[in-house]
Amino acid sequence: MDLTATTSDLANAAAEAVRLLPGRTLDPVLAGLLLTADGDAVVLAGSDRERAVRLSCSAAVHTAGRVLVPAKPLAETLRALDVPMVRLAVEGARLAVRTPNARFALPLLDADLHPGVPSAPPLAGSVDGELFVSALTTVAATASRDEALPLFTGVRVRADGDRLVLAATDRYRMAIASLPWTPGPHALDALIPAALLAEVAKQARGSVALHVDENRVGLAWGQSVVTTALLDGSFLSESKIALSDVDTHVELDADTLVAAVRRVALYADARGVLRVEVGDNEIRLRSADQQAGEAEESVKADVSGGRTSPSFQSRFLIDALKPFSGRRVHLAIQPGMRATVFSSADPGEVMDLRYMVAPMRPPAT
Amino acid sequence: MDLTATTSDLANAAAEAVRLLPGRTLDPVLAGLLLTADGDAVVLAGSDRERAVRLSCSAAVHTAGRVLVPAKPLAETLRALDVPMVRLAVEGARLAVRTPNARFALPLLDADLHPGVPSAPPLAGSVDGELFVSALTTVAATASRDEALPLFTGVRVRADGDRLVLAATDRYRMAIASLPWTPGPHALDALIPAALLAEVAKQARGSVALHVDENRVGLAWGQSVVTTALLDGSFLSESKIALSDVDTHVELDADTLVAAVRRVALYADARGVLRVEVGDNEIRLRSADQQAGEAEESVKADVSGGRTSPSFQSRFLIDALKPFSGRRVHLAIQPGMRATVFSSADPGEVMDLRYMVAPMRPPAT
Repeated sequence: MDLTATTSDLANAAAEAVRLLPGRTLDPVLAGLLLTADGDAVVLAGSDRERAVRLSCSAAVHTAGRVLVPAKPLAETLRALDVPMVRLAVEGARLAVRTPNARFALPLLDADLHPGVPSAPPLAGSVDGELFVSALTTVAATASRDEALPLFTGVRVRADGDRLVLAATDRYRMAIASLPWTPGPHALDALIPAALLAEVAKQARGSVALHVDENRVGLAWGQSVVTTALLDGSFLSESKIALSDVDTHVELDADTLVAAVRRVALYADARGVLRVEVGDNEIRLRSADQQAGEAEESVKADVSGGRTSPSFQSRFLIDALKPFSGRRVHLAIQPGMRATVFSSADPGEVMDLRYMVAPMRPPAT
Repeated sequence: MDLTATTSDLANAAAEAVRLLPGRTLDPVLAGLLLTADGDAVVLAGSDRERAVRLSCSAAVHTAGRVLVPAKPLAETLRALDVPMVRLAVEGARLAVRTPNARFALPLLDADLHPGVPSAPPLAGSVDGELFVSALTTVAATASRDEALPLFTGVRVRADGDRLVLAATDRYRMAIASLPWTPGPHALDALIPAALLAEVAKQARGSVALHVDENRVGLAWGQSVVTTALLDGSFLSESKIALSDVDTHVELDADTLVAAVRRVALYADARGVLRVEVGDNEIRLRSADQQAGEAEESVKADVSGGRTSPSFQSRFLIDALKPFSGRRVHLAIQPGMRATVFSSADPGEVMDLRYMVAPMRPPAT
C-alpha cells in the first residue's frame, strides 16, 4: 500500500473512526483500523464485533493494498501533523506515515485475524442531519447509562409516515422528539444503543440515512457509515403516556428559568430537589437543606389553570429546559406524582419535542 | 451586618479568597470566610492556620458587623448572580444574600471559634506583577509535588540588589528566573510553597509587594494579601550549577521544536524518552518503542561547537521550551549526564530565564 492524501481529510476520517468505535477492547486486532487503498480513495474500517464503522477518504493511490494498524496511534499521529499532505506507505513490517521532515512508523497487525466490517442493512429512509442531531442531543442523553437494564439504554427510533419519532427514558424522565422523515422502502421501529447515537450526534452532518434489518441498524452520512446490533426488548409505547390530568399551565423564558434553577439548586438537599411554587404571575423556586441553608427565587411567568406546585430534581429540570434555550417553554403540570411535560411555547416548530419529568417529594422546610 | 455591594466585585473577591485557601480542611470553621463590614468596605478573610488571605471590597455598609459563613457556598452563590448589585444582611442565624427577585440564606458559623487572620510581615520589596506572574508560571511548575520531600516543593525567592531571583527544582530539572526588583527595608531569601505561588500566578495583577519575617511570607497586590508559613531547609544554591562543560550550542524556533516533540513523543518508550540528534544545520528527534513503532523528525537549527546529542523525557523538554514560545531558544548542551540549559536566544530580555533539564539514557533502537 502506498498513497498520498490531504492531511486534514485523512486525520478527520481517522479521528471520526476512533470516536465511533467503543475503544474498550483489549484485543489489539479489534483496536485496529483496516485501511484499504484502491482506485482514488482509502477506506478506513473497524469493528469490535458489535459496532462497525467505515469511512472513505479520497487519496492518490500509488499502490493498492490493505493493512491493519493500531487505530488510536494512527489518529493521534495524523492529528498532530501540520503539513498539508501526508504519505502512507508500507515499509517492511511497518506502515510509515511520511511528511517532508518526518517519518512515523506504526507496526502492522495481522489483517487476516480481523473479523471484517459488515456492510449496512437495507435503507429505511433519511432525515435532515441538523434536526436529527438536535433531537439526538436531547433524547439520547435521557436514556439510562445503567447497563444492568439494557432496555433503558436505548433510543426507540420509529418511522411513522413522514415523521421520525425518537423516544428514550431512564424511568424518571422521558424525551420524545418527532421530526420530518423521508421514508424509504423499509419500515423502521428499532431500539438503538443511546451511547452510539450520542456519538453520532457529535459527528453527523448533511442528510443522514437510516438502514435497518432484523438485527442491525446503520447510520450513514457523507463518507461515513456506522452500524450496530439492535437492543432486544419492546420499549414502552410513547403514545400511551397519559396527560389527562394536566390542571396547571405555565409559560416562561427557558434560559431565565435555567439560570434561577442553577442558583437555587446550590441550596438543595442531598437529593438535589427544589420546589416549583406556581403563583399568579410568577413561579417561585424554593430549596432548603439543613447544612446549606435555604434559597428562593421568583421568575415571571404566564400561569393559567390551577396552582399545582411540583418538586423536581434540579438536574432533571435543567436537562428538560436546555432544549428550549433561547425560547419560551410551556410546562403542563399534573397533580400528585404524575409527570410534568415540557414543550415549546411555539406550536409551529419543525421538530416537536416533549420532555417529561417525574416529580419528587418536596424538600423539607 | 447589612451592606450593599457591586455583585461582580464581591463575587471576584470571594472567588479569589476561595482559590487562595487550600480548601482541604474538614473543619467547617476553617472552611469559613470572615466578613467584616465597616466604613466603606467589607473585608473577606480566611485561614487554615498555615495559609491566610485577606481581601477588601468596597461596599455601602448600612450596619457594621462581623460574621463567619461557609466560603465556597458564598462564592458560588455570588458567582451565579446576574444582577448588578447584591445585599448581604444578617437575618437571625443566617446571612441572607438578597437580590430583587431572590434570597439565598447561608448558615452563620461561630466567628469566635476562628483562629483569626494574621497581618502581613514587614515589606521586603516589590516587583512588576506581569513579569512576576510570567516567572512564577514557569518556576513554580518546576517544583516537585512530592510532599515527602518538602524542600523540593518550594520556590527559593531571593532579593539580590535590584534583581529578584526565583529558583525551583524537582531534582530532574531546574528553573531559574531573574527579574527587576524594587528593594524595600528588609532582606529576602525565603523558601515559599510552590503551590501557593502557582495560585498567585493565576491571580496577581499590577505591582506585587513581598513581605517577610523569619516564619512567614506575604504577597500583596490590589486589595488582596495572602500570607503563608515558610518552608524549612536550605535550598541548593542556584549559583553553584556548573556549566563549564558546554560543548554544543543549538539555536532554533521554540514553537517548531515543541510541535515536533509532541509528534515524536507519540512513539516514545514507557519512559517517554526521545533523543535529540544534533546535526549540521538541523536537529533530528528520534523515538522508538517495541509496541508503538518508531518516529523521527528533523527541525532546522543553527548549530555550533560539537555534536553532543542528549536524550530527554519529552514532557520535561516541552516544559523547558514553553516559556520561550514565540521566540528562538538557545540550548547549551553538555556531554555525559550533565544538564542541558535552555535560555532565550535574545540576550536583551528584561527577565532572564534559564531552564535546566537532566538527560536520560537514549531510547533503545
